Amino acid sequence: MAEVAVKERRILVAVDEGEESLYALSWCLNNVISDNPNSKDTLVLLYAKPPRTVYPAPLDGTGYMFSTDMISSLERYGKEVADCVTEKAKKMCKDLHDVETIVESGDPRDVICEMADKLAADVLVMGTHGYGLIKRAFLGSVSNHCAQNVKCPVLIVKKPKTK
Amino acid sequence: MAEVAVKERRILVAVDEGEESLYALSWCLNNVISDNPNSKDTLVLLYAKPPRTVYPAPLDGTGYMFSTDMISSLERYGKEVADCVTEKAKKMCKDLHDVETIVESGDPRDVICEMADKLAADVLVMGTHGYGLIKRAFLGSVSNHCAQNVKCPVLIVKKPKTK
Repeated sequence: MAEVAVKERRILVAVDEGEESLYALSWCLNNVISDNPNSKDTLVLLYAKPPRTVYPAPLDGTGYMFSTDMISSLERYGKEVADCVTEKAKKMCKDLHDVETIVESGDPRDVICEMADKLAADVLVMGTHGYGLIKRAFLGSVSNHCAQNVKCPVLIVKKPKTK
Repeated sequence: MAEVAVKERRILVAVDEGEESLYALSWCLNNVISDNPNSKDTLVLLYAKPPRTVYPAPLDGTGYMFSTDMISSLERYGKEVADCVTEKAKKMCKDLHDVETIVESGDPRDVICEMADKLAADVLVMGTHGYGLIKRAFLGSVSNHCAQNVKCPVLIVKKPKTK
């Protein structure tokens, strides 16, 4: 019998605090990850952490200044959220061999697009918050932005509304 | 050994005249359709045909009127394009058992969204023309619209640029 070439894929899943992204991950595990022995999928979990804010010194008398204590506790909090999200996501993938986790600081839109290209991902999977028209207009949609700017196929998974 | 439940999925692929949509179909065949015997995938190919235009009678002297001959030849042409696209797409799926074809008249955005809901598709797969910013602003993006309005997961596949 002819030897079948092993198909290797790198599947990038963007995760965040929302349940929507964990739903997208679970959909991906059930529908995209292959259980065919001739496929070797590597799952990469990507969390974009809000960037470390630079606080201007209040020399002009109008700025707010956070104490060093507050800055470090904000940073600690950010790290805890990142750990919590990635741990939760990793737990969902416990049956997989190849799972990597990446935490990057920055605007999720930039972080996700850059990482998809850098890793040469075969597919990007992401949830969507399903904001209404108004909220979307202000916040912009991360998934829309990525679908337009990422070169690889993008799978957008919406969490069904629970009744 | 416990009997494993067969997973049935209905995968809707929107096809049109562009190579982008056929590329999306081929990506779907290679990456989404499962070759696991415990999965039963039905592939539904959907082509949205431009609607039959209603030509107003030129009573006000300003309208254009097409002769009956021209109308029927336009319609024949539309049908030929639909046949050609769906035949080409079906040929690509010749190794699959369960392939259905649907041709519906109307704006692709409405046709695709309505059909995804009506069929309770598990996933909608579509290509993207990758228009630039200006063209997208005028034409609107079918894939954007569908990603925002369809309830099921949407997979947007971009055709890589050939050098």
